[in-house]
Amino acid sequence: MSVTAAQGFTAAGIAAGIKENGNPDLALVVNAGPRLAAAGVFTSNRVKAAPVRWSEQVLRGGTVSAVVLNSGGANACTGPKGFQDTHATAEKVAATLNAHGLGEHNAGEIAVASTGLIGVLLPMDKLLPGVETAAAALSADGGEAAAIAIKTTDTVHKTATAGQDGWTVGGMAKGAGMLAPGLATMLVVLTTDADLDAATLDKALRDATRTTFDRVDSDGCMSTNDTVLLLASGASGQVPAYEDFAAAVRAVCDDLARQLIGDAEGASKDIRIEVVGAASEDDAVEVGRSIARNNLLKCAIHGEDPNWGRVLSAIGTTKAAFDPDRLNVAINGVWVCKNGSVGEDRDLVSMKGREVHITADLSTGTESAVIWANDLTAEYVHENSAYSS
Amino acid sequence: MSVTAAQGFTAAGIAAGIKENGNPDLALVVNAGPRLAAAGVFTSNRVKAAPVRWSEQVLRGGTVSAVVLNSGGANACTGPKGFQDTHATAEKVAATLNAHGLGEHNAGEIAVASTGLIGVLLPMDKLLPGVETAAAALSADGGEAAAIAIKTTDTVHKTATAGQDGWTVGGMAKGAGMLAPGLATMLVVLTTDADLDAATLDKALRDATRTTFDRVDSDGCMSTNDTVLLLASGASGQVPAYEDFAAAVRAVCDDLARQLIGDAEGASKDIRIEVVGAASEDDAVEVGRSIARNNLLKCAIHGEDPNWGRVLSAIGTTKAAFDPDRLNVAINGVWVCKNGSVGEDRDLVSMKGREVHITADLSTGTESAVIWANDLTAEYVHENSAYSS
Repeated sequence: MSVTAAQGFTAAGIAAGIKENGNPDLALVVNAGPRLAAAGVFTSNRVKAAPVRWSEQVLRGGTVSAVVLNSGGANACTGPKGFQDTHATAEKVAATLNAHGLGEHNAGEIAVASTGLIGVLLPMDKLLPGVETAAAALSADGGEAAAIAIKTTDTVHKTATAGQDGWTVGGMAKGAGMLAPGLATMLVVLTTDADLDAATLDKALRDATRTTFDRVDSDGCMSTNDTVLLLASGASGQVPAYEDFAAAVRAVCDDLARQLIGDAEGASKDIRIEVVGAASEDDAVEVGRSIARNNLLKCAIHGEDPNWGRVLSAIGTTKAAFDPDRLNVAINGVWVCKNGSVGEDRDLVSMKGREVHITADLSTGTESAVIWANDLTAEYVHENSAYSS
Repeated sequence: MSVTAAQGFTAAGIAAGIKENGNPDLALVVNAGPRLAAAGVFTSNRVKAAPVRWSEQVLRGGTVSAVVLNSGGANACTGPKGFQDTHATAEKVAATLNAHGLGEHNAGEIAVASTGLIGVLLPMDKLLPGVETAAAALSADGGEAAAIAIKTTDTVHKTATAGQDGWTVGGMAKGAGMLAPGLATMLVVLTTDADLDAATLDKALRDATRTTFDRVDSDGCMSTNDTVLLLASGASGQVPAYEDFAAAVRAVCDDLARQLIGDAEGASKDIRIEVVGAASEDDAVEVGRSIARNNLLKCAIHGEDPNWGRVLSAIGTTKAAFDPDRLNVAINGVWVCKNGSVGEDRDLVSMKGREVHITADLSTGTESAVIWANDLTAEYVHENSAYSS
């Protein structure tokens, strides 16, 4: 159901010709109100794409009437011309929607998101006419088409919904590589018909992304374009309790984040890394990320080898509080490392399934965190040594 | 010429049966003096193998009369028994050398180094008799055999020498994966016949490793076993000027470090990353390492794709001082990125050779640093998903 599951939203996804292969590459999501409240979270990469710099400005106002997203080009590292192109895209969306009588829009309230190759200018001669095509295609059933149009190397489109008592949160996501904390090359748009202001949306979105999108680490690489937006139309007239709403946003983010890991480029395993017994949540996250990024371990898991020594060597590179002689590690429930040394028989570990669970017990405190990662495969190397989409 | 290039040293490398395939797996290096001065640098991983914890203690005294090294097992994460095994090995070396009349040795002055799989106890029933075999094989020409016996997945053994005016520095190294700052799975033994004390050796060794072994980053993984030792016999009777000696140690380290990168597991490219225009050397190193560890870039280089966008996205994850709009990047001499945007035509870049040069200009200051790395290949994945040597 995607971004049109919530009342008050229309969407479209069309092929503007930005992608040379003719696949859908332009998505439009429009909020018909009555509210136009919005919040956003963006990449923490200091090299930010033009649409990220534009949308950060837009979101400062807390009002977004529409989002335009393109695949087929990231518009990152494209200089002043790239920023002008983003601005022109927002102007075009506002003018086109106004011409269609679809609300009163101005460019300063249009968010823009792009994904694809870095360092290439967008073909504006295709993108701008595409905006008109997309506007004409807007519908209350358009969420699926929008989710399809933002795919790059994704093999499937990703959507999710949650909600209760007459209000809904829905969303779409793309992202299949360059997934790492501080978000990833992920574009995510969430919508809700709950009647909430921008400050409440912002709090719920940050609470949710902190423990979902920020804790997937497919390949340790941080993108220049990550964008997660939450738009509220208020069309349901419902004002949910904050905790209920935050839980729904978190559920949708968690679902979409898990889908991103499940569709990561070239991956054959989804790895759930749970760090327990940590002195602080920050320690647990630091250790989880270090394990998630260890190429040797990622290779071992690809080979279904319960190589716990590589888990310990990854933990040892962190500043977290722990005593090496009290570390315990389980792989798929078998405690192969106890007290920093050999534990249960590694031959008891079965790693045939797609999902692999690693538990690292720091034996120091009571805090914990979960990080999701992928294995490292020859297919990942192949896909990323010949990237062109 | 290896560790026996300098006067006063004998060495041996033999097959003790630690490796199941019967290849050489035990090396012994003995200092006949008259000096027995030594310095050491070890992994900064907080999970340290038993031989590292042992040798750190030994080196505190500044005196090392012999080094015993084994491949075929790291003796890491092996608990109290692993440490007892290391201790027993040092005792065996001392007793055996004393029995052969090869100086007066005590276990507290015997350094031990191990490499291989983590989490497996060494077969002491093979290792201890092997010490006797190695002692019987010691010779002033044994440096080559010692260098061969410490190989794991190395395809070639690595040795280097430097020196002048009657004194020599020689060395051997092993290491082909898990290469990363804070050293790597590298075992290195350097010897010299210069007549210098332990404090001078320590200074020269730290100066050298800081800009050589600490700046190779094959796969971002830090080992539990890294050990670099420098032993001085004083047998030449020469006392070189510090700068001359330090330069010779640095030259040998640089040569060996370059050989490690050239023989890294599964690599098809050696990548020289030079960061210039940095506000500080620390900034330059941080940026260089971030580039060196970016899996997407490593894949692109494997595919001979001058994907400078991935360089910028890696720089953007650091805390170094820079303005994104003033970043310049050259690949093999072609400035494909200027002022954070598109520069010279990327089609001008040829990446056919094994060596690829990336220059990142932060346009902020005058400091610089060089980091060496490798590409990411399907062969790396294959070798590390089925590691068993």
